[in-house]
Amino acid sequence: MSQSAAYSVEEVSRFLLEHDRILILSHAYPDGDTIGSAYALCLALRRLGKKARVECADVIPEKYGYITEKAPPSEFGFETIVAVDVADQKLLGGFEPLYGDRIDLCIDHHISNTKYAARLLLNPEASATCECIYAVILKMGLTVDHDLALALYTGISTDTGCFKYSNTTAETHRIASELMKTGIDAAEINRVMFETKSRARVEIERLALDSMEFHFDDRCAMITITKAMRAQSGCKDDDLEGITSLSRTVEGVIVGVTVREKANGRYKISMRTHAPIDASVICGKLGGGGHARAAGCELDGPLTAAKAQLLREIGQALGI
Amino acid sequence: MSQSAAYSVEEVSRFLLEHDRILILSHAYPDGDTIGSAYALCLALRRLGKKARVECADVIPEKYGYITEKAPPSEFGFETIVAVDVADQKLLGGFEPLYGDRIDLCIDHHISNTKYAARLLLNPEASATCECIYAVILKMGLTVDHDLALALYTGISTDTGCFKYSNTTAETHRIASELMKTGIDAAEINRVMFETKSRARVEIERLALDSMEFHFDDRCAMITITKAMRAQSGCKDDDLEGITSLSRTVEGVIVGVTVREKANGRYKISMRTHAPIDASVICGKLGGGGHARAAGCELDGPLTAAKAQLLREIGQALGI
Repeated sequence: MSQSAAYSVEEVSRFLLEHDRILILSHAYPDGDTIGSAYALCLALRRLGKKARVECADVIPEKYGYITEKAPPSEFGFETIVAVDVADQKLLGGFEPLYGDRIDLCIDHHISNTKYAARLLLNPEASATCECIYAVILKMGLTVDHDLALALYTGISTDTGCFKYSNTTAETHRIASELMKTGIDAAEINRVMFETKSRARVEIERLALDSMEFHFDDRCAMITITKAMRAQSGCKDDDLEGITSLSRTVEGVIVGVTVREKANGRYKISMRTHAPIDASVICGKLGGGGHARAAGCELDGPLTAAKAQLLREIGQALGI
Repeated sequence: MSQSAAYSVEEVSRFLLEHDRILILSHAYPDGDTIGSAYALCLALRRLGKKARVECADVIPEKYGYITEKAPPSEFGFETIVAVDVADQKLLGGFEPLYGDRIDLCIDHHISNTKYAARLLLNPEASATCECIYAVILKMGLTVDHDLALALYTGISTDTGCFKYSNTTAETHRIASELMKTGIDAAEINRVMFETKSRARVEIERLALDSMEFHFDDRCAMITITKAMRAQSGCKDDDLEGITSLSRTVEGVIVGVTVREKANGRYKISMRTHAPIDASVICGKLGGGGHARAAGCELDGPLTAAKAQLLREIGQALGI
């Protein structure tokens, strides 16, 4: 596979100023950052008098309507393709066969970017691709107004868990401060992004909490999610996002485990720990791996056997 | 009651520079902002070679230990009393009789401040009192280092729900950016503040979700918390904080209601709505009141009668 030419913010800005009829692609299963990046860039290019539009292989969730309505679809024969927040051409989803090998420019913040595009602006220090897009927009000589800020703030806020995660930097807050000056209603964006749950999500959380059991003097909490529970709640994969962190949020728990029954009857184990317990060591002994605080493995059923195996290793790690 | 003299940041800074042997008081049931404000100010005054210590009528929760350990108790006869984030002398709790009428200076951001102190720096635009303390510290000629930043960031983050609420401004993010430059581990602070729940809280959430019922084509969600549920979970009043917002987080719900059985057998109703439903109108008809999106009332039992009364009014508001 060819390697991308590494582009600076200045080079990207010049490239975009020199091109027109630009198709902007976000990744499949789009999230706030890819959508915010794509629409902010699209709006900026239109301000410069260029033809630009956003496309995504998947439907953009309705909750992002306040962003997408600002740059309605537009028909034109494109000449340039830009991918934003797309770390790998595979992540173009249904668009991969069509565009995968034809990306002129990629703007991204994932250190894992596979360098599939002809040109690549990669800033792994950025909390979100929207931070990179913000820099490019300024470099193109534009000022960020309310509508651009709506899109950019959404990407930054969603990718940082509202400035909560460790990818948040001083620069992230500095940019957020500039975006807030445009008068955007950030609290409303955050309400929609963080304080709205689907019925199915609420239901699977309820069932997950019902299943929670404590072991080893309450230092270990275990959640079990069976196929039957998923069916009862009607939840999709999306609805399970972040559910593995539930068990570790309980005060005093240093090993949180989520056991999920897979379609094939095996069990997928997700483990989250607090120092000094190393999740990757425990999961490693069970044939899996991962990081010190987040690791996983897969075990054979039946459920009682899988749990017993897990508890034996956790007990050993806890020195019991 | 006497009115405070309104003080600017500059006047407060001069006042503090000219005084010594300073007792700093936080409010009772201390939260992140009053603790962060008190300890940041105490540390700053000690840097200036002054004697200073923090006192609080209630025990400071253990989770703030990373702040309190930076300014250990110190014995001295105080000459000056400063209250931080204390909107009303009553909020001094057990310290009110002792100090309530003797506060030389209050630094606060609550618009409702009752002006009980001799001098008052009040900035209602500030998201947190820690924003005011930050300004005072800089004005006194100090630079904010890692330990000061730990305390100040904690106050700002906790009072804004990690930059989520509408009190967050461009200035809030600008200050957060400056604080992050000192190298504090903000993600770890936020994990402790926002992603740790007591066993009792997890248990009452589980029971609350179990009780959740939907009405009017799922546009109304209702949670019931009985005395028995509280007893079963072992939860205290603290553990119930924010639980009334649970019902409104469900997608599609525009009227979220929490019904809480009181010790005297009556029912306390908390209502949270989305536009255009006016919670204060519905609760007003039931003898209560509040704001357009958050209101409440009290109803007589039995529970079934209280619910029926509520549902009748909600149905009417929804045009059903």
